[in-house]
Amino acid sequence: MSESVRTTRVPVVERVLEVNDQLAATTRADLERRGILAVDIIGAPGSGKTALLEATLRALKGRRHPAVLVGDLATRRDGDRLARWCDQVVQISTGQGCHLDAGQIRDALMQVDLSEVDLLLIENVGNLICPVGFDLGQAAKVGVFAVTDGDDKAAKHPYLVQAADVLLLNKIDLLPYVSFDGPLFQADVRLLNPTVPILEVSSTTGAGLDAWLDWLDRKSADGGASTPIA
Amino acid sequence: MSESVRTTRVPVVERVLEVNDQLAATTRADLERRGILAVDIIGAPGSGKTALLEATLRALKGRRHPAVLVGDLATRRDGDRLARWCDQVVQISTGQGCHLDAGQIRDALMQVDLSEVDLLLIENVGNLICPVGFDLGQAAKVGVFAVTDGDDKAAKHPYLVQAADVLLLNKIDLLPYVSFDGPLFQADVRLLNPTVPILEVSSTTGAGLDAWLDWLDRKSADGGASTPIA
Repeated sequence: MSESVRTTRVPVVERVLEVNDQLAATTRADLERRGILAVDIIGAPGSGKTALLEATLRALKGRRHPAVLVGDLATRRDGDRLARWCDQVVQISTGQGCHLDAGQIRDALMQVDLSEVDLLLIENVGNLICPVGFDLGQAAKVGVFAVTDGDDKAAKHPYLVQAADVLLLNKIDLLPYVSFDGPLFQADVRLLNPTVPILEVSSTTGAGLDAWLDWLDRKSADGGASTPIA
Repeated sequence: MSESVRTTRVPVVERVLEVNDQLAATTRADLERRGILAVDIIGAPGSGKTALLEATLRALKGRRHPAVLVGDLATRRDGDRLARWCDQVVQISTGQGCHLDAGQIRDALMQVDLSEVDLLLIENVGNLICPVGFDLGQAAKVGVFAVTDGDDKAAKHPYLVQAADVLLLNKIDLLPYVSFDGPLFQADVRLLNPTVPILEVSSTTGAGLDAWLDWLDRKSADGGASTPIA
């Protein structure tokens, strides 16, 4: 089957990406002009993206002015959780869509008062694969892995590791209870991306959160230099 | 953007699915004729699918004659792990593909001696979304959730819960260390699928594995009644 199917598919996917990339470029220009750092947070379902954002928003109170866009197939549970810590949260329901796209981000931003914002945190749909290839207009991509998901996840998801501007290794408070070979994980990452920072964090205990907040501050100070998908 | 993009995309996706479904139907007929039960195991990255299969293969030694097809974007680590417990294991590398398809299954089955097999275990790519809509020719779909991934994952992935013939709630040995509201998870599942069995398991301790093996035996005895995607 495969050949004929791929021949019909590829041009369409490219056309979609072209439209997507144009919209993302417009968003990127808008956000840069306003001095807003936008980060696209990508991780598996259950890697702890929402808990990480809760801890991040709590720590940023009075220090930054964040807005959050959060994508899920269904439910507004993440949006409700995050709204306790941030006035400007938009839940994006993707239905059967396995990733956010630049059009959804632009639509969602219509509901945000950007004049009040200096940091845009985008929590993508829980998926290590599909979100990687879609530019949303972010300044940086953040990859989230959890120690509970096993030490092989970087090697198995090379495109995310290569595309990421920073990797968070989450749930390190659970290291005593799971089998996770830290040096193997680090070595797998280094083969794919020799320079990406790897920050070990726990949203539960707060361990490592300062390094993550510092990274956000430094990235903002850099003017959020854009990293569109090649 | 969205309207014009969706208009161009949908017909192509339907054509792909049509080809896929024809191939899946052929595979299903082949497997049923041979009396082979095929199950498609779907779960998030890190939900413990491979560890569950290792424990399953270990327990089935001398009792069943399994073959395993395992999908990943990259690496053959899962295949290598499973090959210690089963003579017939085929690793399918999907590259950037976020799910297995019926053509890949047919190609992989060319490398299996089906005359020696009565159970085909297919470990799909780690992803709770994309694999759900693709018929592989299986007799049953198995959804795997892990308590470490949070109690909200059933509600957030309604299509998998609706399509599943059985759900495994994995890593229950880690319940003391994580926040997981079991009754909430069960209630979310029941709203979406009133009858699907929910089996609590731990590949680490072996808890609940007997119920899972019994389910496989009963399903085989039923003649593996097919459940193609509607």
